[in-house]
Amino acid sequence: MCLRPVPREPLRRVAVTGGTHGNEMSGIYLVRHWLRAPGELQRPSFSATPVLANPAATAACRRYVGRDLNRTFTSAFLTRPIRGDKGPRAEPAAGAQGLPPAFDFILDLHTTTANMAACLIVDNAHDAFALHLCRHLQLQSPELPCRVFLSQVPRKESFHLDSIAKNGMTPELGPQPQGLLRADLFTRMRALVAAALDFIELFNQGPALPAFEMEAYRILSFVDFPRTEAGDLAGTVHPQLQDRDFEPLRPGAPIFQMFSGEDVLYEGESTVHPVFINEAAYYEKGIAFFQTEKLTFSVPALPALAPTTTRGP
Amino acid sequence: MCLRPVPREPLRRVAVTGGTHGNEMSGIYLVRHWLRAPGELQRPSFSATPVLANPAATAACRRYVGRDLNRTFTSAFLTRPIRGDKGPRAEPAAGAQGLPPAFDFILDLHTTTANMAACLIVDNAHDAFALHLCRHLQLQSPELPCRVFLSQVPRKESFHLDSIAKNGMTPELGPQPQGLLRADLFTRMRALVAAALDFIELFNQGPALPAFEMEAYRILSFVDFPRTEAGDLAGTVHPQLQDRDFEPLRPGAPIFQMFSGEDVLYEGESTVHPVFINEAAYYEKGIAFFQTEKLTFSVPALPALAPTTTRGP
Repeated sequence: MCLRPVPREPLRRVAVTGGTHGNEMSGIYLVRHWLRAPGELQRPSFSATPVLANPAATAACRRYVGRDLNRTFTSAFLTRPIRGDKGPRAEPAAGAQGLPPAFDFILDLHTTTANMAACLIVDNAHDAFALHLCRHLQLQSPELPCRVFLSQVPRKESFHLDSIAKNGMTPELGPQPQGLLRADLFTRMRALVAAALDFIELFNQGPALPAFEMEAYRILSFVDFPRTEAGDLAGTVHPQLQDRDFEPLRPGAPIFQMFSGEDVLYEGESTVHPVFINEAAYYEKGIAFFQTEKLTFSVPALPALAPTTTRGP
Repeated sequence: MCLRPVPREPLRRVAVTGGTHGNEMSGIYLVRHWLRAPGELQRPSFSATPVLANPAATAACRRYVGRDLNRTFTSAFLTRPIRGDKGPRAEPAAGAQGLPPAFDFILDLHTTTANMAACLIVDNAHDAFALHLCRHLQLQSPELPCRVFLSQVPRKESFHLDSIAKNGMTPELGPQPQGLLRADLFTRMRALVAAALDFIELFNQGPALPAFEMEAYRILSFVDFPRTEAGDLAGTVHPQLQDRDFEPLRPGAPIFQMFSGEDVLYEGESTVHPVFINEAAYYEKGIAFFQTEKLTFSVPALPALAPTTTRGP
């Protein structure tokens, strides 16, 4: 499990990455815009760096070229010998947690074809700084759905791009097809980034931030599509499940519609909350949806920073 | 302009093609299902042949490999010398209009990321047989939107896959992201194919089919995104235009939202009807949407077939 210590100093080295997946256009066009007009990423105590994380995949308008960049950053990968300069683009930022030259914080911008609305992805329930950020974003626009998803798979280490920073968070907005840019999601993502940078500025100013109760969704398991004997799809997500991300799925409810006509029902014993339902990128991974459980837990207060560290650069 | 004569004999050689674009999954999975269970494509007077049109692109889950198959079938392409067996998969069916071994009819199944609902694509207003088919499909489910789109660009020849048959029509259903399969569109496309085969069976039985008035949308022009001096996107489709395919766009209405914040307004002098709004596959073609005009025209009666030709095979 990745345990990320709460920062004890102001965050100066902040990156906003887009195009980690080269066909998720909101982050790509936001980063390209900020590379031309970086003023939007400036705050009194820091300036966030816009990074186009995977130019090769972006040029090809594909999720990745060769390997999925957002499944890459295991410790084995981060500590391997580097030959030449042919590694993925984000590699110069690598430093694993706490090791130089790690960024203090990475916001890694993603979109999904699933009806996830604004979803904030955090490693786990111990990731206190990111969870304070999530809480701040939820309070900024309480009328808009903005759920927290804990992405760490039990007994697996983190491998997402933002895990190379000391702290990080991944906004995942949907639904948006791959390869196109919807204005509504673009605007929402831009507002989330602005509010996230405002939160980092608030933190850098040094006040203590009180504890709170957080509701989030944690991965239980992955569910594959029904398949023929040859391994091809034999059905797809049921219309009664499609687009119902985060809603409760109760035992006996339909989850798949077979091409032959009949329904496949959910046979679990307890209610779960499916997410990433019918995400295009997960067909190759054999995932029709994730099963999650909804849980509530306490996030501890962030102590005030020492006064001498709060000034701007 | 492609002028397709009304058939004078029953249609025996009918194909249903899917995967002409390898990331439009509804047609791909329908064809794969029918290859395993072809009974659904049988009618008393013919059996339609399911064809996976572009296996290489389908295996890669990309629109095409090398060249866009659905922009390929110009007469120059169809009459070129063939060396070896390396042409696109649909080539053995090639025969241009009326030349053996052309299919009598091809239904070429497509999906779009645009909010087109069920759209029936026909070359032009002279394509009487296909327009009778469209009318039949509209009457089968009058409560569902099912618009006719005339795809032929003024002064350009046809190049779509279905143009290699003596007659053809392209159902285009959306919205569906590339690379995934929505049950609702799958079911709707399957019903449209069934009703289309029923219509061909009806035609083969030989009765005259009366004339009618048809409403359709014809291409006027293509509109590109606003761009920076370097040619990159400078904005995207305005939220007030997004998802409004086929609805009237009036002078002065917003069409783009710039990343810098301001709106771009439609400066034309007359109302148009945008279609294929924000289709992912058209970014590379420099098209944000098509402008069409809505028109009404008469489609002549189809005469009765001679009785001796109406029996089944």
